[in-house]
Amino acid sequence: MKRVLVIHGPNLNLLGTREPEVYGRATLADIDASLVVRGADLGIEVACVQSNSEGGIIDHLHAARGAFDGILINPGGFGHTSVAIRDAILAVGVPTVEVHLSNVHKREAFRHVSMIAGACVGQVLGFGAGSYLVALQALVDHVLH
Amino acid sequence: MKRVLVIHGPNLNLLGTREPEVYGRATLADIDASLVVRGADLGIEVACVQSNSEGGIIDHLHAARGAFDGILINPGGFGHTSVAIRDAILAVGVPTVEVHLSNVHKREAFRHVSMIAGACVGQVLGFGAGSYLVALQALVDHVLH
Amino acid sequence: MKRVLVIHGPNLNLLGTREPEVYGRATLADIDASLVVRGADLGIEVACVQSNSEGGIIDHLHAARGAFDGILINPGGFGHTSVAIRDAILAVGVPTVEVHLSNVHKREAFRHVSMIAGACVGQVLGFGAGSYLVALQALVDHVLH
Amino acid sequence: MKRVLVIHGPNLNLLGTREPEVYGRATLADIDASLVVRGADLGIEVACVQSNSEGGIIDHLHAARGAFDGILINPGGFGHTSVAIRDAILAVGVPTVEVHLSNVHKREAFRHVSMIAGACVGQVLGFGAGSYLVALQALVDHVLH
Amino acid sequence: MKRVLVIHGPNLNLLGTREPEVYGRATLADIDASLVVRGADLGIEVACVQSNSEGGIIDHLHAARGAFDGILINPGGFGHTSVAIRDAILAVGVPTVEVHLSNVHKREAFRHVSMIAGACVGQVLGFGAGSYLVALQALVDHVLH
Amino acid sequence: MKRVLVIHGPNLNLLGTREPEVYGRATLADIDASLVVRGADLGIEVACVQSNSEGGIIDHLHAARGAFDGILINPGGFGHTSVAIRDAILAVGVPTVEVHLSNVHKREAFRHVSMIAGACVGQVLGFGAGSYLVALQALVDHVLH
Amino acid sequence: MKRVLVIHGPNLNLLGTREPEVYGRATLADIDASLVVRGADLGIEVACVQSNSEGGIIDHLHAARGAFDGILINPGGFGHTSVAIRDAILAVGVPTVEVHLSNVHKREAFRHVSMIAGACVGQVLGFGAGSYLVALQALVDHVLH
Amino acid sequence: MKRVLVIHGPNLNLLGTREPEVYGRATLADIDASLVVRGADLGIEVACVQSNSEGGIIDHLHAARGAFDGILINPGGFGHTSVAIRDAILAVGVPTVEVHLSNVHKREAFRHVSMIAGACVGQVLGFGAGSYLVALQALVDHVLH
Amino acid sequence: MKRVLVIHGPNLNLLGTREPEVYGRATLADIDASLVVRGADLGIEVACVQSNSEGGIIDHLHAARGAFDGILINPGGFGHTSVAIRDAILAVGVPTVEVHLSNVHKREAFRHVSMIAGACVGQVLGFGAGSYLVALQALVDHVLH
Amino acid sequence: MKRVLVIHGPNLNLLGTREPEVYGRATLADIDASLVVRGADLGIEVACVQSNSEGGIIDHLHAARGAFDGILINPGGFGHTSVAIRDAILAVGVPTVEVHLSNVHKREAFRHVSMIAGACVGQVLGFGAGSYLVALQALVDHVLH
Amino acid sequence: MKRVLVIHGPNLNLLGTREPEVYGRATLADIDASLVVRGADLGIEVACVQSNSEGGIIDHLHAARGAFDGILINPGGFGHTSVAIRDAILAVGVPTVEVHLSNVHKREAFRHVSMIAGACVGQVLGFGAGSYLVALQALVDHVLH
Amino acid sequence: MKRVLVIHGPNLNLLGTREPEVYGRATLADIDASLVVRGADLGIEVACVQSNSEGGIIDHLHAARGAFDGILINPGGFGHTSVAIRDAILAVGVPTVEVHLSNVHKREAFRHVSMIAGACVGQVLGFGAGSYLVALQALVDHVLH
Repeated sequence: MKRVLVIHGPNLNLLGTREPEVYGRATLADIDASLVVRGADLGIEVACVQSNSEGGIIDHLHAARGAFDGILINPGGFGHTSVAIRDAILAVGVPTVEVHLSNVHKREAFRHVSMIAGACVGQVLGFGAGSYLVALQALVDHVLH
Repeated sequence: MKRVLVIHGPNLNLLGTREPEVYGRATLADIDASLVVRGADLGIEVACVQSNSEGGIIDHLHAARGAFDGILINPGGFGHTSVAIRDAILAVGVPTVEVHLSNVHKREAFRHVSMIAGACVGQVLGFGAGSYLVALQALVDHVLH
Repeated sequence: MKRVLVIHGPNLNLLGTREPEVYGRATLADIDASLVVRGADLGIEVACVQSNSEGGIIDHLHAARGAFDGILINPGGFGHTSVAIRDAILAVGVPTVEVHLSNVHKREAFRHVSMIAGACVGQVLGFGAGSYLVALQALVDHVLH
Repeated sequence: MKRVLVIHGPNLNLLGTREPEVYGRATLADIDASLVVRGADLGIEVACVQSNSEGGIIDHLHAARGAFDGILINPGGFGHTSVAIRDAILAVGVPTVEVHLSNVHKREAFRHVSMIAGACVGQVLGFGAGSYLVALQALVDHVLH
Repeated sequence: MKRVLVIHGPNLNLLGTREPEVYGRATLADIDASLVVRGADLGIEVACVQSNSEGGIIDHLHAARGAFDGILINPGGFGHTSVAIRDAILAVGVPTVEVHLSNVHKREAFRHVSMIAGACVGQVLGFGAGSYLVALQALVDHVLH
Repeated sequence: MKRVLVIHGPNLNLLGTREPEVYGRATLADIDASLVVRGADLGIEVACVQSNSEGGIIDHLHAARGAFDGILINPGGFGHTSVAIRDAILAVGVPTVEVHLSNVHKREAFRHVSMIAGACVGQVLGFGAGSYLVALQALVDHVLH
Repeated sequence: MKRVLVIHGPNLNLLGTREPEVYGRATLADIDASLVVRGADLGIEVACVQSNSEGGIIDHLHAARGAFDGILINPGGFGHTSVAIRDAILAVGVPTVEVHLSNVHKREAFRHVSMIAGACVGQVLGFGAGSYLVALQALVDHVLH
Repeated sequence: MKRVLVIHGPNLNLLGTREPEVYGRATLADIDASLVVRGADLGIEVACVQSNSEGGIIDHLHAARGAFDGILINPGGFGHTSVAIRDAILAVGVPTVEVHLSNVHKREAFRHVSMIAGACVGQVLGFGAGSYLVALQALVDHVLH
Repeated sequence: MKRVLVIHGPNLNLLGTREPEVYGRATLADIDASLVVRGADLGIEVACVQSNSEGGIIDHLHAARGAFDGILINPGGFGHTSVAIRDAILAVGVPTVEVHLSNVHKREAFRHVSMIAGACVGQVLGFGAGSYLVALQALVDHVLH
Repeated sequence: MKRVLVIHGPNLNLLGTREPEVYGRATLADIDASLVVRGADLGIEVACVQSNSEGGIIDHLHAARGAFDGILINPGGFGHTSVAIRDAILAVGVPTVEVHLSNVHKREAFRHVSMIAGACVGQVLGFGAGSYLVALQALVDHVLH
Repeated sequence: MKRVLVIHGPNLNLLGTREPEVYGRATLADIDASLVVRGADLGIEVACVQSNSEGGIIDHLHAARGAFDGILINPGGFGHTSVAIRDAILAVGVPTVEVHLSNVHKREAFRHVSMIAGACVGQVLGFGAGSYLVALQALVDHVLH
Repeated sequence: MKRVLVIHGPNLNLLGTREPEVYGRATLADIDASLVVRGADLGIEVACVQSNSEGGIIDHLHAARGAFDGILINPGGFGHTSVAIRDAILAVGVPTVEVHLSNVHKREAFRHVSMIAGACVGQVLGFGAGSYLVALQALVDHVLH
């Protein structure tokens, strides 16, 4: 059975309470539960972690080597600036999909740029909490198949 | 039964023969067939059009008003420069998802920018021909539900 | 009797229904009718065309050579990027006024730049559908007199 | 009877003698006279002032509050740089139209940018001394009506 | 007894009536009165002037040499562009604090830059009319003590 | 009794020994003590934390929700680059004031930009260790009153 | 016998009458005739098409696959902005030479950039109508030989 | 006898006391006296004015028309930003030389740019108070001769 | 005996397995061992630490004060963006040399910039794992001698 | 008989051995021989020089005045930066064509810009050693005829 | 007797024949003769050299150490780009004045920047061949006195 | 025995006397002597050349082909701008290390960029005259071994 790691970046632990008009009302626990269920439907084991620290996210990426077959990462604010997370994705070599809840292209200009997209397989954004499910399906159907 | 229009932009009619190492070997007819089938599975009627002309794409967008419930658009090279297509998406008001076959963020810098993303619901990219299927699923599950 | 051609660019065929809080509720037919009437008052024959295609607009400009004494052009989204329309205006040599319904300077930064203004006699913008009438009057009084 | 204030910015007192190939041969007195006459035709009282000082222009704008129903402003060189005049227009809240004699988009790049256009109703430029008359008509027909 | 000069820049004479949702409802007279009272509490004599003119502000700065021990300046729109006011602050050599009513960093990008901050002791902004009181206290406690 | 959290960012634990000509000779313990005393005078309970880690600062911000009525943050070097701290301030929704010891506008150009100022109530900078006291007073008088 | 397609872009149909001081007095028919003659001399069959539409040019490029051994393209104004034409040249895989009548480097800065040159074999510009003949010779001698 | 007007811009009235390590110890009166004497030696009548106001400088420039044969202008901080002074120099048509006391190219980057140099005959800078004498000699020998 | 601290930044714990064609096949343990041996040859005690966290690196820098005479730092991806590490190096005041395994100038443009180089004594890069040995020798011979 | 000077810039003396996959295998002697032969066919005398020095190239350009009727110049790396060579071409007034072996637009961004193209008649690039022959033919047919 | 070296940069040997409408009709020999004569009047020995080579100019600057008391340099096109000449002026330590014949600020934007001005005492430009005489007088009166 | 060529760029012949606070007091002869001695210790023959001319440096690089096994180059001011030296290093194909005496990243912004680093094996900078010795050791140990 294949395994997928979901990494939630900074501030996502506040999901459901933080600016719900931007990010929706689902909590992170809700999202994680829905990902595990959907994973089970797809015959995939899903594990979820969250960190507010750039180093913590890098550690999670490193730990995924050999342990997971695919990664979904919502890098939050780090996605726009972190060379080190980009390097970690490249170093680990596990196929990774970048996920964003909101359509970052509708927001401030500094959110239009992704420093990590070039190290990922692809990108899914703009479907709220659904972005994770879309990305999981995409990873399973088009990368891990 | 809900209806989704898929708009393929410039050069996509060459799909399967054009730079297959970048864009894959599926032809546009293959992709359209797979979208119709998947649509049927989801209880959605899917129609597909292609145009190499910016004006032609705008005309297709206009025609979708009142006729379709959602749009998938792969704007090809126009996606990086066209204010007019952006305006058309806004004018038509049908929920639209931007799709790219390749991960544009791994290619030349002028492909990292999307002029139309800010007018769309979301973006799916990097899964080859699978990007369309991912986007169709996302549109159905998270926008048209 | 002098003749003026009015060229409406992309998406203007949707006028009156498209984002009315930005562009107003007059339809393109309303505007064309008001321009013909005002032209008659001024002793000017007015003809109106619309195209969603950059090439279509260039063709209309070319056709105006020798047939019209002045041109009003609302280039829509093409106005911010089209070198080819700029070249067509210069090539045709008929005095041309750029018109915008909205005050583009109150909107996104990419709308603050005009690629065609330097090829025109002048510019009128911000008066809604009235911008056309203002520009027609200006063309007649200050250029065609 | 509605009242319109015309504010002429720096160097416009030299009109008619300054670079006539760029700005035309009408003097400021000629223009003011033509504006008063045209105003009378339109049932509008027109008053005209000129200042070479940024602060003087701001003072004129302030004095227009409650005293005038509309403003035409030719900001001259200040239009490309003055945040303070932009703020004054916003603060005063009287509908204002930016006017330029020449087509600034045909001149040096630093004249292509307007710092005040985003605070105005609209813009008229390129018709020589006629720009003022066009703008007055536009203000009366489409804003003060 | 130490003396502090408060210089209010362009448009601040309209305070209380100008865009109150941005700048609050206190008038300039209210603010000046509160500054004089607070100064008295702190054993400081406070004088207040206002000018809409860049040159007028420079004259006030010059006049402060030898006459005042500290300066609060709200440069309004001039703060983002004026090299001459920057030079005047440096030339006069009286410790100066830059004050803004609003948080300029939440507004248009051209307000994020201060041309004069580098010539001042420090900056206080974002507390509405309170910014002046905060800055007065700061100047007294941390610079003039 | 209202409560204020003071968050000191990276390198501030070295205060008093690090580049004293830039940052002064007060230690962080001195500053914290003075803030607690001043808070007591103002009827405010003050708590202080320090972290050299971006993630640690985000955790402190999250913990402040529901527990504190206001926040002072000296983001140190993170203030110029961190989208994630900006997001955390917005997510937490507690009124926050940005504080800097030095006048960052007198230093290198990369320190002139604040990535977090737009998410804060206001900014106080340039008064050395006094900046914290000025900001506390400002928060109490003009935000928490 | 090898075959070469010559594609003329927007406004070139006006050649000989449009700004002759910039583009010369030869008409497009003159140029096409001279290319056919020169082609015959070189043992090459030459066909010529013109389009004012970006989509039309892309269609001509697509049609050249398998039908022509080389392409000369004068992209006119599209050459400075069109990602889609660049993509079409790459997709079609027929050796292509970019041609300009005028020396674009002597004109406005926006004409100094070519979006398509990187997809072509080479570039010939500045020899008026002769540029086409030079490019044909170059294509035959150095690419198709 | 030919006449030359010397216009001193903002803050130059403080000369001799303002940052003497940058600007030297001569007062403005000293400089004016030396210019009158040198003018007398050269058979030229020299008049000197100073203004801290952009509008004031423009007024002085206007007044020079027909009254003076040449102008020396030290625009101070306005030289780096003022389009209106540039326009005034062009409008007045009297040969003008830009003067700076210090070598602005050794100072902050925003002083390296001159907005007015393109409207002047030439530029002399870096010789302290001597810059004026050098420029006067240059104007007399090479322009007014 | 003098002491040198070697700080390895993010992802360097993966050395030897991560993109060996870019970074070589030596593991971090290999490098640390070779540094200790070379240090012994030079009469220097060498200690090595690694952290994937920006805050962790700052903590290591702080701990070096008074404990080490020199520092080698390979900041990895943080070197291109971290103002906070730059500040920590300046605050700690221990002579520091920046090290990179690869020649960053041969890679993506965002790796050409160092935010920390200006706070270091010098830089050694491009010699693979040898860069550390080169830098150690340089530090000992030219800084600690 | 007309005379043409061919100037080869820096590093071209290494041709045939330097990065042959970029520049081809022909030596400079081969190219010069082919140019002389082709010149003879065209009734033109061709002379060839090479210099690795910017000054040397300028000297060759100067020497061409009155001695040659046309110039081909391959400026190598100087073409992207040299204002002095641009000035020399303008000063000498002999019609000059810029030549590059490779298609510089397919290479690093700093090679996309030509500082000298604006001073030349035209440009030929991308045909390897053939570029010189193409340019010679172009010069003879379209400039020297 | 003090000694001044005049260094003429690239293309100045063509003076009098090169674009006389830009640079005037005096030859370099004329200028050198006038400088020697004027030097004699001022009690100064003047020597003049010219070089088209950046290295040659650096050699002349080096040779001036200990041999000359002042330098006039017209760097021609090298003035806009040469870091090495800037370094040479700083290294040599002889007071140097930058001279240009034309007003570079009226020409192309790349001529508005001086790479060497920051290493010089001052700058004189725009007086044609007279610029040298003005600069010599300035050097003698205000630097060498 | 392997051979290394050391190329010193412009102004380095003045070493020891030029700005010693930046570049140290060792003369070039001192440095060359120390390099020859160190080379002998390492079993390497070292030859040293210096040139103030870009072309001279290119000639030295060319001469190194087949004659030397490695190159150290201190490009001085040319390192920040010379495409031609970059091309020469690539063309010659001898492993090359870029050396700078000072830490260029602590100096003006135009010195932070290296145009040649991307063509070199690596870079050593900031150790004064020691930089050459460090680079020689690095070249021998990690490239020529």
